Amino acid sequence: MGKCQRAEGSEVRLKSPPDIPVEKLNAQAVERMARGRIQLMSVGRALETIPRMRSNMILHPGPPVAWDHMTAALQGAIVGALLYEGIAETEDQARDMSIRGRVIFEPGQDHHAVCPSASVISPSMPVLIIRNETYNNFSYCTLNEGPGRVLRYGAFKTEALERLRWIEKTLAPVFRQAIAAAGRIDLSNIMSQAVQMGDDLNQQTRAATALLIRVMSPHMARTCSNREMLAQILSFIDSHNPFFQNLAMAAAKAALEPAQGIPGSGVVTALGSNGTDFGIQISGLAGDWFVTPIHPPDGLYLPGYSTLDAQPVTGDGALLEGYGLGAFILAGAPANMRFLGGSTAEAVQITQDMYAISAGESIQFSIPALDMRGSPLGIDVQKVAAAQRLPRFYAEVIHKQPGVGPVGAGLWQPPLACFEAAAAAIRQEQSE
Amino acid sequence: MGKCQRAEGSEVRLKSPPDIPVEKLNAQAVERMARGRIQLMSVGRALETIPRMRSNMILHPGPPVAWDHMTAALQGAIVGALLYEGIAETEDQARDMSIRGRVIFEPGQDHHAVCPSASVISPSMPVLIIRNETYNNFSYCTLNEGPGRVLRYGAFKTEALERLRWIEKTLAPVFRQAIAAAGRIDLSNIMSQAVQMGDDLNQQTRAATALLIRVMSPHMARTCSNREMLAQILSFIDSHNPFFQNLAMAAAKAALEPAQGIPGSGVVTALGSNGTDFGIQISGLAGDWFVTPIHPPDGLYLPGYSTLDAQPVTGDGALLEGYGLGAFILAGAPANMRFLGGSTAEAVQITQDMYAISAGESIQFSIPALDMRGSPLGIDVQKVAAAQRLPRFYAEVIHKQPGVGPVGAGLWQPPLACFEAAAAAIRQEQSE
Repeated sequence: MGKCQRAEGSEVRLKSPPDIPVEKLNAQAVERMARGRIQLMSVGRALETIPRMRSNMILHPGPPVAWDHMTAALQGAIVGALLYEGIAETEDQARDMSIRGRVIFEPGQDHHAVCPSASVISPSMPVLIIRNETYNNFSYCTLNEGPGRVLRYGAFKTEALERLRWIEKTLAPVFRQAIAAAGRIDLSNIMSQAVQMGDDLNQQTRAATALLIRVMSPHMARTCSNREMLAQILSFIDSHNPFFQNLAMAAAKAALEPAQGIPGSGVVTALGSNGTDFGIQISGLAGDWFVTPIHPPDGLYLPGYSTLDAQPVTGDGALLEGYGLGAFILAGAPANMRFLGGSTAEAVQITQDMYAISAGESIQFSIPALDMRGSPLGIDVQKVAAAQRLPRFYAEVIHKQPGVGPVGAGLWQPPLACFEAAAAAIRQEQSE
Repeated sequence: MGKCQRAEGSEVRLKSPPDIPVEKLNAQAVERMARGRIQLMSVGRALETIPRMRSNMILHPGPPVAWDHMTAALQGAIVGALLYEGIAETEDQARDMSIRGRVIFEPGQDHHAVCPSASVISPSMPVLIIRNETYNNFSYCTLNEGPGRVLRYGAFKTEALERLRWIEKTLAPVFRQAIAAAGRIDLSNIMSQAVQMGDDLNQQTRAATALLIRVMSPHMARTCSNREMLAQILSFIDSHNPFFQNLAMAAAKAALEPAQGIPGSGVVTALGSNGTDFGIQISGLAGDWFVTPIHPPDGLYLPGYSTLDAQPVTGDGALLEGYGLGAFILAGAPANMRFLGGSTAEAVQITQDMYAISAGESIQFSIPALDMRGSPLGIDVQKVAAAQRLPRFYAEVIHKQPGVGPVGAGLWQPPLACFEAAAAAIRQEQSE
C-alpha cells in the first residue's frame, strides 16, 4: 500500500448497522446521489453566504494543505485573492501574512463549496448559490473568470484582479437579477440535456453553456437596463465554452453531499486535488480526508511543454467523475476522447471500466451510444481496491508558474493509496 | 417501375462528356456540396429578395403542384398567406382566387427558397438571406413560426396570422439589425458543432438553436432598444428547439445548388415533397423534377392518431438528408433514433445503409460514434436503383386537417419510382 495520510474530520458518526450487506449501503448512497434535483438559486457574497466563512479565510480546492506545502500556482491565486480583498497591498505582504498564519486556509469542500483549477474563494467574492431541492442542501462556486491570465491559473497581476472586479461589479449583479426574475434555473435539466448533446460536463461544457444562455438571456434582457453591458456579458459567456464548468462542479457537490454519512458505505462522496495532494472522502467516514501526494500527469501537452512545466492536477473537477460525468461518461462523448488522442472504442472501454468500480448507475445522465444506459455513478473504494483498477479523471494540465495557464489535457489516474486506505478503514468499520 | 412523371425545366444543359467515368462526375458533385461555406447574411422582404418572385405568387414546398391537387393543409397555408397579404379578405375569396388561377403557385426550390412542412412564402413575408460564400449563390427561408396553430401546419385563423405579423414587425427587424451588427452569422460553423452535439439538424436542432442564440444574443442586446421585446424574442427562440430547422434547410439548399449542372451526374441536388407528390432533381438534369405520388407514412403516432389522420410527408426537409444530415447521420444522433423507437445499433445501421447509396462523404459533418467518419453525402440515383435500396428521410407527420399540426414522426422511404426514372434518364444521357 502506498503512502496515504488520513485527516480526520469532526463529524459525529453512527456505527455501521451489522446486518445490512455493504452492497445495500452503497446502493443507498448512489440512490441519494441519483435523486438530487439541482437548481441555481441566487448569487451572494461569500462571507455572508458560505457557512463558517470568515473575513480572513481563503477556501482552496482539494483536501487540506498548509501554505508552505502549496504549489506556486495555488499560492499565486491566494496572493491574488488577498490583493483583490485589500487584505494585503503588495505581493510580499500577502505572502508574509500567509506564512505568519494571519490567513486561514480551508478546503472549499469542507464548506460545501468547490474551487475549479487553482481558484480560491475569498470573503468578498460573489458566489453562485446552488440548491439540491430533493434534500434541501446547498453548494457554492465562483463565476467562471473566462480565459486569459486569471486567478484560477494562479495569476495575481492587474488582468486577474480587474477580471475579478468586473465579475463582482458587473457580471454577478446581472446574474443575480436575472436568476431572481427566473425564480431559479434548473441545472439538472440543463445538465441532462447537455449530456445528450455530447458534453461530459468537465472537459466539454459547450452545450451546457449554450443552454444556460438560452434559459437566462430573456431574463437578463428583462432586468439589465444597460444594453452595452448586457451585450458584453453575453459575448463573454458566448466566447467561453467552459463557462458552465463551475456550475457543473457545484451541482455535483450538491448532489454528492446527501450521500454522506451512511454508516458502512465506501462510496466516494468528496474528492479533489489541491495541487500537492489528491484526497477523497467516503460516505461512511464523512469528514475524513484520505490524502496522497501527486505528480504532474501524463497527457497531451501543447507543443514545447512537458510534465516538467506542469503542476499536478489541481481543482475540484474530480467531483464530476464522482457524479458519473467527465471521463466516466466518455462513451457518450467520443469527440472529447478523440481530442485526447483516443478512439471511440477506447472511450466506450473507459466507461465500461468505470462501471466495474462504481456502486450504481445514474438515472439522470444516460449515454445514447450505450442505448441510454445510465452513466456509472458512485465510486466504490472497495471495488477499486479489490480490482486494483483506478478511476479515470479528466485533467486540464496547467503550468506550474502562476498565471501561465493551460499547457495540456489528459485522462489521469489518482494514486491507489488513498482508495486502499479508505477501503481498509471502511472494512474495519463494517466488521466492528 | 412505378409511376413517375417528369416535369421538365427550362435550363440549358451541356452534354455529358463521353470519356469521364460517372463516379468521377458524381464525386465532383459531392465535392461541390461538401465545400460550401454557408452564412446568414441578412433578412429581406420576399418580393424584393427572392429572384423571379411576383406580387401574386406563392412559393410552396416540393415539386410543382396545381391548386386542385394540393392537400387541405397546403391549401390552408395558402389561404392564410393570401389573408396575411391582404390579397384576399375572406377564406372563400382566397380559395376562389386560387381556383381561378389569379394566384401563381411555384415550387420554392425553383426560386432557391425552401418551405418547411406545409409552409409557403408570400410576397410580404420576411425571408432570411443565406449565402454559400464558396460559390457565391444564395438561398432563402422564412423565420420559424414556433409552436401552435401556425401556417406551416396549414392554419389560417387569427393565431396563425398574428404570429406572421409578429414575425414581420418584431422578430425580423431585430434579426436584421443583429445580423448587420454581426456582419454575418457562420451557419456552417454552428451546424458542424451542432452535429457533434447530437443534432441531426432535421428532427433535432436543439444544439443549433442554442448556438444561434449564443452567437446572436450579444448583437441583439446591442441593437434592440426595447428590452421587453428582446426578452420576448429570446424566450420565443429558447422555448422552441426547432427554430433552427428553417436555417438548416436553407443552408442545405445553398450547399446543394452548386452541385447542379454537371452533365452526366446522377447525384440528387433538389428534393422535397408538396404533400401530394415527392420529387427529386439530379445534377446532370437540373431543372427537371422526377415526381411520384405519396401516401401518409408509417411512424410513431401520438395516441389516438393513425395514418388515417395524417397527410403525406410535406416540406423541403429531405434537403437535409440530401446534405448528409437528418436520418443520414442517425449514427451520430442515436438519442433521436431512440425517440422513434429504434436502438443505437439500428441508428448505426441506417447510416451504414446510406453510405451504400451515396456518392461520397461530408468533410464538414463527422460522426463521433463512427470515429469521426464524414456523413454519407450526395444521394446517387443509380446506386439507389441498382441496389433497390431507398434513402431514409426523417418525417414530422402532420394532421391532414389544416392547422392541427404534428400527430407523429417517423423515418420514411420515398417511392422508388422517381429514383428509377431519374437513373434511367441519366443513364441515357451518359450513353448518348
